[in-house]
Amino acid sequence: MEPRVSFITLAVPDLEAAYNFYVDGLGWEPAMHVPDDVLMIRVGDKLLLSLWVESGFEGEVGPIRRGEGHVPITLAHNLPAREEVDAVLEQARAAGASYVGEAAEREWGGYTGYFGDPAGYRWEIAYNPGPIGQTVLP
Amino acid sequence: MEPRVSFITLAVPDLEAAYNFYVDGLGWEPAMHVPDDVLMIRVGDKLLLSLWVESGFEGEVGPIRRGEGHVPITLAHNLPAREEVDAVLEQARAAGASYVGEAAEREWGGYTGYFGDPAGYRWEIAYNPGPIGQTVLP
Repeated sequence: MEPRVSFITLAVPDLEAAYNFYVDGLGWEPAMHVPDDVLMIRVGDKLLLSLWVESGFEGEVGPIRRGEGHVPITLAHNLPAREEVDAVLEQARAAGASYVGEAAEREWGGYTGYFGDPAGYRWEIAYNPGPIGQTVLP
Repeated sequence: MEPRVSFITLAVPDLEAAYNFYVDGLGWEPAMHVPDDVLMIRVGDKLLLSLWVESGFEGEVGPIRRGEGHVPITLAHNLPAREEVDAVLEQARAAGASYVGEAAEREWGGYTGYFGDPAGYRWEIAYNPGPIGQTVLP
C-alpha cells in the first residue's frame, strides 16, 4: 500500500452550514455537491475534502462518538509568510468560523493559529519556516 | 484562503503502535520521527500525515472527545482497479490493522472497504470508476 491519501472525509451534522462556510464564506468551489448528502472540494492536486452528512457516514462506517471535547484531528493550511496567518484567520472569522483563536509562536519555530468550521473541526493556519514546512507550500 | 490541505494531524494514544503499523507494517517512510511526540509521513505531493501523541494535541488544541463510537472522519486511499482493493485490505490486516472489513459494492458505483489503524482511525480503500475518482489517482 502506497502512502497516499485521496479523500479526507469529515462527517458533519449540518451540510448546509458547511456549504455556507466553505463555498459562500471562503469561496471554495464545489467539485461535487448533492444537497443533504455530500459536498466535495478539491484541496490538493489529487486530494478532495468530502463533507458527508452524519447519517450517511454512520450508515456506512458506524455510530459516531459524541459528547464534549474535540475531535482528535486537525487539518493544516500552510502559508509562506507569517503575516498571512493572521490575515487568513480573519478571513475565516468573516466567513463565519465557529471559533477563531489567536495565532501563537510555537516551540518548533512556527507561528500558527486555529479556527473552527461550523461542525467544530479545527483548521490550523500555519507558517512553518522549517524544511518540512517548505515541502508543502504551493 | 485557498482550498488547500498541507497536513492531516491525527492524535494517537500510542505513537509506538502507530509507528509499528505505518512504518514497520505498511513500509511507509517517516519524513520526521520524534519518539513519544510525533511521526510524520508524506502522503501526497504537498501533503503530510502527522501522528501526534494525544498529550501534545490536547496541550495545544484542547481536550479530546472520548468514549464509544467512531471518530467522525475517514481517510481514503483510491486505487485504479477493483481487485487491488481486496489486496490492500489484506496488506493492512498483515500489518496489524485493528479492524478489517469486507469490501462492498457502493450505490455510487464504487467498491470500497475499510480498515482501522491502531488508534481506530478508519481508512477507506476505494475503487471509484467515476470522474471524480479518476482525478485522485497517481
